[in-house]
Amino acid sequence: MAISKRVAGIQPFYVMDILSRAKALERQGRDVIHLEIGEPDFPTPPLVAQYATDFVRRGEIRYTPAAGLAELRQAIAKHYRDRYGVQVESERIFITPGASGGFLLAMALLLDEGDKVLLEDPGYPCYSNFVRLFGGIPSLVPVGASTRFHLNSEILSATWDHRTKGAVIASPSNPTGAVLRPDELKALVEELERRSAFLISDEIYHGLEYDEPSPTALAFSDRVFVVNSFSKYFGMTGWRVGWLVVPADGIDNVEKLAQNLFISAPAPSQYAALASFMEMNLQELEQRRRVFQERRDFLCDHLQKIGFSIKTIPSGAFYVYADCSRFTSNSFDFALSLLEETGVAVTPGKDFGKNAPESHLRFSYAVTLDRLAAAVERIKSFTQRGLGVRR
Amino acid sequence: MAISKRVAGIQPFYVMDILSRAKALERQGRDVIHLEIGEPDFPTPPLVAQYATDFVRRGEIRYTPAAGLAELRQAIAKHYRDRYGVQVESERIFITPGASGGFLLAMALLLDEGDKVLLEDPGYPCYSNFVRLFGGIPSLVPVGASTRFHLNSEILSATWDHRTKGAVIASPSNPTGAVLRPDELKALVEELERRSAFLISDEIYHGLEYDEPSPTALAFSDRVFVVNSFSKYFGMTGWRVGWLVVPADGIDNVEKLAQNLFISAPAPSQYAALASFMEMNLQELEQRRRVFQERRDFLCDHLQKIGFSIKTIPSGAFYVYADCSRFTSNSFDFALSLLEETGVAVTPGKDFGKNAPESHLRFSYAVTLDRLAAAVERIKSFTQRGLGVRR
Repeated sequence: MAISKRVAGIQPFYVMDILSRAKALERQGRDVIHLEIGEPDFPTPPLVAQYATDFVRRGEIRYTPAAGLAELRQAIAKHYRDRYGVQVESERIFITPGASGGFLLAMALLLDEGDKVLLEDPGYPCYSNFVRLFGGIPSLVPVGASTRFHLNSEILSATWDHRTKGAVIASPSNPTGAVLRPDELKALVEELERRSAFLISDEIYHGLEYDEPSPTALAFSDRVFVVNSFSKYFGMTGWRVGWLVVPADGIDNVEKLAQNLFISAPAPSQYAALASFMEMNLQELEQRRRVFQERRDFLCDHLQKIGFSIKTIPSGAFYVYADCSRFTSNSFDFALSLLEETGVAVTPGKDFGKNAPESHLRFSYAVTLDRLAAAVERIKSFTQRGLGVRR
Repeated sequence: MAISKRVAGIQPFYVMDILSRAKALERQGRDVIHLEIGEPDFPTPPLVAQYATDFVRRGEIRYTPAAGLAELRQAIAKHYRDRYGVQVESERIFITPGASGGFLLAMALLLDEGDKVLLEDPGYPCYSNFVRLFGGIPSLVPVGASTRFHLNSEILSATWDHRTKGAVIASPSNPTGAVLRPDELKALVEELERRSAFLISDEIYHGLEYDEPSPTALAFSDRVFVVNSFSKYFGMTGWRVGWLVVPADGIDNVEKLAQNLFISAPAPSQYAALASFMEMNLQELEQRRRVFQERRDFLCDHLQKIGFSIKTIPSGAFYVYADCSRFTSNSFDFALSLLEETGVAVTPGKDFGKNAPESHLRFSYAVTLDRLAAAVERIKSFTQRGLGVRR
């Protein structure tokens, strides 16, 4: 089959190899602890489920407007006022099928063939592929502990060239959990505006912060694009509902794109999401956040004791990106062998870019503290037996 | 804002002007009959709603595999056996967020910058925009009554050039409701294969046929791409769930794309869709199909009596694409004025291409027979008063 150049350039996710081996082991009766997972382990919040079933029972489940339910767009605008003290007109908010839908819209709007986009490395692998999808060129910028795994305005200036059209940042970051400070984010926004370049700020892990809250890029400019979702903090992964905030002069074009690309986000999910901002639900989510925080503390502490190096303590999301160079020079083989020997599944660094992936692993803490403790014991014994050192 | 060339090339849907005027009239207390609608007027089938609420109550609403729930893919494979007598391996079936998601995957897989794609004109306007999205060039091929508003192998050969990479067809067609005969479809499939070109067959209106069933392109080749959805025949528009069938050697690449573009289709919608193929539900859908058929007969009959010309009686979907040249040389102005004077909303031809759009209107019959009768009365009186003749 004659496939497009862009598809040929898309890497598979290496974690899929881990996952498929994990499933094979489970079929053999082995107990696998899943620290490779990218979704919270909590069920849909009860009030959200209730809103969904009430809506479905009424039976009239139609296409919504392409931009989404007006009530939900207004509820999100209120969320920006209540949580961040930022004014965002609801007309600028588009409801999308997950954060993925937001990236599709923003990239389709902004990119022409050959446009370069700066991406933090390590970072979420799909960004590169969204850029490629529309003929753009992903430009991976290595970021490390010295800037707490984030782009900043100096790195931006140093890596800029005439083909660069903009940047994508994510705070809290996947895989590092690192949070950008407000002054850094502000400087980055201003530097990009000075260059008439776009910023897409991925704020999907907002709310899942354990030390200080993440600022929204919208606090510093109404020219940025903000992608967010109900998947992570709001615990609605399988529902596929998120949002994109666009500058006012982008509304008409993004609406055209949404009409063509999605028609609308799923209606039951949009109605369900309306419950997200109810006080009762927010209390439930805060409770969950504290559970995540406890797990983070536990996991960071124990991984360090075992001998992993964590250069920046993750302040958000539910991941620890740990340096495993004391045990291996090939994190992918290490991950496969850890799984094989102990039944602990983790994600290899090479899913997150080209910046020292062979010495990093991502540990997710979307499992209970009990399971996390069991995983830590297994990992400890694995490393003590020297099994991690394979080549 | 610097927007991409592709977005600048996307036409807005003119029906949006009609819709927004219709809403303004409704706010003034006017009764509007909506014959511009592209979705069935029936509620979600009860069994489907039941499956959804049962699933949501269990609370574990996670990402599904990128290709979709295995049970649903198997149920669709069984549907191909039961309904068409065609064998399709479930591994070739990808569950997508509506048919839109299927087009995204197929076009992203197949198109490089500058590739030409043949499209039937009149046809569904989003095809052009999906082609443009990935740098392709939509090539509108005028089709008329002589080929019952469809591409055929002769037209294909006559319009082919070295940049052409494939074609999209839709049967039953939106806006014409025309159904391709099996021999015509077979010849088309063979002609495209002879040219090593792709065919994307949009079968979203399958099941809504009133004279003879539509063949699936899968009956003639396992190299075609078939887009379908639970939206129309299965009555699940707002749920956003559809499917894409791909050739076996496309599976890995389409899976990579799905992982990146969607993560997965909405889980509650996928579980709900499982009910679609239950005998009790199929009986309900057959009942609905007969209601549509009655409306089609009524509307075609009366529009012709009023003086509209219907060159090919629509055999499927829920649209009549009628020639209004006896009344106007500008169907868009006619539609606006019909709405203003009588409160009947229809879709102007120019939403469907460049092939005599000014002399065509699309009438949807996704309203009750009573409302259809009222609409017909209003249209009749409007044309008799000569109000349609404005310029």
